[in-house]
Amino acid sequence: MLQYRTEALTDAELEREREVAGGLAQSTRDLVDAVVRTTLPDEDLIEVRKQVDELTARLRSHQLPGSFGIAVTPEGTVRNHGNTVVGLRNAMAPPLRVQTDPGGRAWADFTLGAAYEGPPGMVHGGVTALLLDQLCGEAAAAGQSPGMTATLSMSYRRPTPLGPLHGEARVVRTEGVKTWVEGSLATGDGVTVECEGLFLLPSWAVEPAAWPKHVHRFE
Amino acid sequence: MLQYRTEALTDAELEREREVAGGLAQSTRDLVDAVVRTTLPDEDLIEVRKQVDELTARLRSHQLPGSFGIAVTPEGTVRNHGNTVVGLRNAMAPPLRVQTDPGGRAWADFTLGAAYEGPPGMVHGGVTALLLDQLCGEAAAAGQSPGMTATLSMSYRRPTPLGPLHGEARVVRTEGVKTWVEGSLATGDGVTVECEGLFLLPSWAVEPAAWPKHVHRFE
Repeated sequence: MLQYRTEALTDAELEREREVAGGLAQSTRDLVDAVVRTTLPDEDLIEVRKQVDELTARLRSHQLPGSFGIAVTPEGTVRNHGNTVVGLRNAMAPPLRVQTDPGGRAWADFTLGAAYEGPPGMVHGGVTALLLDQLCGEAAAAGQSPGMTATLSMSYRRPTPLGPLHGEARVVRTEGVKTWVEGSLATGDGVTVECEGLFLLPSWAVEPAAWPKHVHRFE
Repeated sequence: MLQYRTEALTDAELEREREVAGGLAQSTRDLVDAVVRTTLPDEDLIEVRKQVDELTARLRSHQLPGSFGIAVTPEGTVRNHGNTVVGLRNAMAPPLRVQTDPGGRAWADFTLGAAYEGPPGMVHGGVTALLLDQLCGEAAAAGQSPGMTATLSMSYRRPTPLGPLHGEARVVRTEGVKTWVEGSLATGDGVTVECEGLFLLPSWAVEPAAWPKHVHRFE
């Protein structure tokens, strides 16, 4: 069920894609933020909308039939550029640039703006779950026990303000196809949210041996 | 700490804002999807990026200094248009059009595309947590026991495919400032994800009596 397509991109071409498609996504992120915050009059918004529609039509003239999925280069580098949290092509993603170590740890420093708001001035509680789910999954994969989320339990200690944040996760135990992971988000003033997750490699998924070499390196 | 600003918008002006700013956000959502899926050559992406940057600069010429927050009209209608899940101005939001009833129930039907992907062809597990957190919070508010998420426990039954989905949540118990809520997401083939949440009205939040009249109607 987890299908990967192989694409004949060299790592150098991949770097170029990061720069160009990643750059377009970054500009689109800025646009999303500006649409939330703009106070321009209706006439301007109507004009801007028309131009956005034209750009979308141009991009759609040549596009993948469905979602981006996960592609793997011949060199074994994974491109999950469409991913909601880490995808370089996905303007919804902050994107997290996750660092990992083979001991089963993952962490990232990032900044969340207006598009991630729940209560006024605060990060949406569900966004913190979204980011921690990804970090926990990457910690599990980095520790050579990749899996899908089976359970995720969030504990909200205090509100998480919009702005710079640090997130981290670590594997606390493994048992066969089961991996238990703990994670947290913090501001400079300390932890705001904690979580515990159980990750499973389900029977319908690929065998671990069949996973691409660098599947834990979500580049 | 939960601050609302009051804006002198009539409900008619608000309807117009929904149409115009909401329309721009919808077009921006389409752009986000197209950026993920486009296969146009680099030269085109570089040109499109430049035009996106120009539109962003235009929108930013007049903008709120920070995030959108929550505004309340003199008629008492809440505008949380910046919200990551339900915000009409927020291109990250699907957006969910949540329906509620005063018995403490909330539900929504919606479709998730390429921008919400985790595993190939599937909704990111964290996105399901994001949406259920909002639905549970709205169920609590609809049942006259609004609060902030204290805990949220997700149970993933099977992968959630991208496409049309139904989400719902209901209050199962209240005790003073504590409200317990259950929720789920489903495809036409049944439930994919379930959750249980505890919502609290913290002491630093406004008194319930001071909440705007229609705070449970996130329009």
